[in-house]
Amino acid sequence: MAKVAVVFHSGYGHTKKQAEAVLAGAQKVDANAQLVAIDAEGNLSDEQWAILHAADALIFGSPTYMGTVSWQFKKFADASSKPWFTQMWKDKIAAGFTNSATMNGDKLSTLHYLFTLSMQHSMIWVGTGLMPSNKKSAERNDVNFVGSFAGAMAQSPSDSSPEEGPLPGDLETARLFGERVAQVAAKFKG
Amino acid sequence: MAKVAVVFHSGYGHTKKQAEAVLAGAQKVDANAQLVAIDAEGNLSDEQWAILHAADALIFGSPTYMGTVSWQFKKFADASSKPWFTQMWKDKIAAGFTNSATMNGDKLSTLHYLFTLSMQHSMIWVGTGLMPSNKKSAERNDVNFVGSFAGAMAQSPSDSSPEEGPLPGDLETARLFGERVAQVAAKFKG
Amino acid sequence: MAKVAVVFHSGYGHTKKQAEAVLAGAQKVDANAQLVAIDAEGNLSDEQWAILHAADALIFGSPTYMGTVSWQFKKFADASSKPWFTQMWKDKIAAGFTNSATMNGDKLSTLHYLFTLSMQHSMIWVGTGLMPSNKKSAERNDVNFVGSFAGAMAQSPSDSSPEEGPLPGDLETARLFGERVAQVAAKFKG
Amino acid sequence: MAKVAVVFHSGYGHTKKQAEAVLAGAQKVDANAQLVAIDAEGNLSDEQWAILHAADALIFGSPTYMGTVSWQFKKFADASSKPWFTQMWKDKIAAGFTNSATMNGDKLSTLHYLFTLSMQHSMIWVGTGLMPSNKKSAERNDVNFVGSFAGAMAQSPSDSSPEEGPLPGDLETARLFGERVAQVAAKFKG
Repeated sequence: MAKVAVVFHSGYGHTKKQAEAVLAGAQKVDANAQLVAIDAEGNLSDEQWAILHAADALIFGSPTYMGTVSWQFKKFADASSKPWFTQMWKDKIAAGFTNSATMNGDKLSTLHYLFTLSMQHSMIWVGTGLMPSNKKSAERNDVNFVGSFAGAMAQSPSDSSPEEGPLPGDLETARLFGERVAQVAAKFKG
Repeated sequence: MAKVAVVFHSGYGHTKKQAEAVLAGAQKVDANAQLVAIDAEGNLSDEQWAILHAADALIFGSPTYMGTVSWQFKKFADASSKPWFTQMWKDKIAAGFTNSATMNGDKLSTLHYLFTLSMQHSMIWVGTGLMPSNKKSAERNDVNFVGSFAGAMAQSPSDSSPEEGPLPGDLETARLFGERVAQVAAKFKG
Repeated sequence: MAKVAVVFHSGYGHTKKQAEAVLAGAQKVDANAQLVAIDAEGNLSDEQWAILHAADALIFGSPTYMGTVSWQFKKFADASSKPWFTQMWKDKIAAGFTNSATMNGDKLSTLHYLFTLSMQHSMIWVGTGLMPSNKKSAERNDVNFVGSFAGAMAQSPSDSSPEEGPLPGDLETARLFGERVAQVAAKFKG
Repeated sequence: MAKVAVVFHSGYGHTKKQAEAVLAGAQKVDANAQLVAIDAEGNLSDEQWAILHAADALIFGSPTYMGTVSWQFKKFADASSKPWFTQMWKDKIAAGFTNSATMNGDKLSTLHYLFTLSMQHSMIWVGTGLMPSNKKSAERNDVNFVGSFAGAMAQSPSDSSPEEGPLPGDLETARLFGERVAQVAAKFKG
């Protein structure tokens, strides 16, 4: 059984909702998959770090703020230099997701960063595995309407509450993404 | 008077429509701004190269195919190693735009590449200067609904004809972007 | 047994040398690993495409020209839209390498593109898994002196022949990288 | 007279040395160019923010930690959402530099982020304007040996003190870069 941890920061609650959907997807494969929330100061407890070290797959999540991950997520990433020195996370499965207010809004920059972080840790990266919905008949709540391959994206209007956004289609995208990452982790663990 | 050239490749006509909108915007500032179309084999004529060499601003455009510029655009970029060796384009203004079928669809990867190309040429990069439309009340035909800062993005459904797409809002975004680049070029020329 | 194919373009022979080193590394794990060379017009034969379709891991290689892959490599990538439509390469292992004349020289831009391509194909990406040699005592021929995580980099001076460059350290880096990718592919196949 | 501010974070002092070299270059054009240091908690004083708001050019600098800017720099970037909302920095000149221990070490990822940040602010980006030293005869202390176009890079071995690194060539690169950015700012201001 491959263990999955979803490690994320959320500023206002939208990314938390997305993280919960990713978790729900992962739990279809690993019933014990769990959330690891980075706090408002960018810190994790020792117990939380231990969950990450023990996991077979780490799914990174952050809002896109000013063009990449939040500073709190980055503080976590900087603190991961400790396991990096010993390459403790080598060959774990990695993946990433992000939410922001704008359709594009440089969300790909955030996913590129999460990928870059995972490569420094010698992890193995998995994307959405989902084709985009991009025909004339496409609707906003289709799976992968926002249209990302490298990781899962969600879009929540700038004046929406966490209850209002992300929309159902983006949450379903997050679930399918979480399930895929957990499946790849399970297959890789053998 | 700053001279503007819009150098682009279009596979099916959607990016050409976007290029024409960028041109229309640029022409509000430089009445003689012109299109320079890369052909289906990725080539430009000597006359077309001369237009680029004489311009004060080059606006690069390409569809996003398989995650970055089309191979025809890249063939043009590779051929630009000739003016690169002598840094002939140094201090020209640069900017970029792209169209693809998907809302995100890695369009930012294309803009990042166009930026990277311009930096090798020691050009000076200008983005859209447009805030995104990302409130709950946002509509598909708002200016910068697709939501890009580094350059102009348009989205045309995968089964749309060039007549059908890009949509009016994306074309208006392209016009405002072309006008901005030409204004910056004029200001920089002094 | 996981099948590995190294699909690459080389303009002057330096990237070919790097590809051969990647292959040598891969063959320690998959004795039948093979090179698939993109020709000077950016084409592959039907037999070559068949090798790619049958492989469990595709290692992409290209020189960095004007900031990303060569146009010939991009023509191959654009032609891969055919297997993309049916997601024929889904869950294959992917990895990438590049050579250029400059220490940095935007080689990371090339690796980012190869990653982006692989994500559109729903492949699973593996990096070098090699720590950089970056102490005061570091020497040019150390493994991963050029210092890349996302894929293997080599640097060959602009006036070096393919016989002279890449240097032995970069070729050893390429071998270790090829071996790692093949090992991950073997583990993933189970 | 165009006003230049070099806003940076330094963890151990290497990036500070690079920032001082950038400043020295800028001061050849703007004698009053100044440093604005982000503190160890990622904060600026009101007086420091006022310097940024009044400047014509902002040169961003950060070490590359775990693949992009330090969390302290990111905290500053997140706090810049306040001037972003009113686009207070629109049409300022922007540029960026970074130091890390490894030759590549994902430094381009950091520069790409600084570029992305500047584009959200509708700034105008200037790179190094320096050709790389990449011949067989190249030496470590040549200008732009590290070889970057989008912004200035320096490399300081992981076990070097700030006194030992960055090396003289990287500092000269930083000076020429600072001078170029100030010149472009002066030309743009007219």
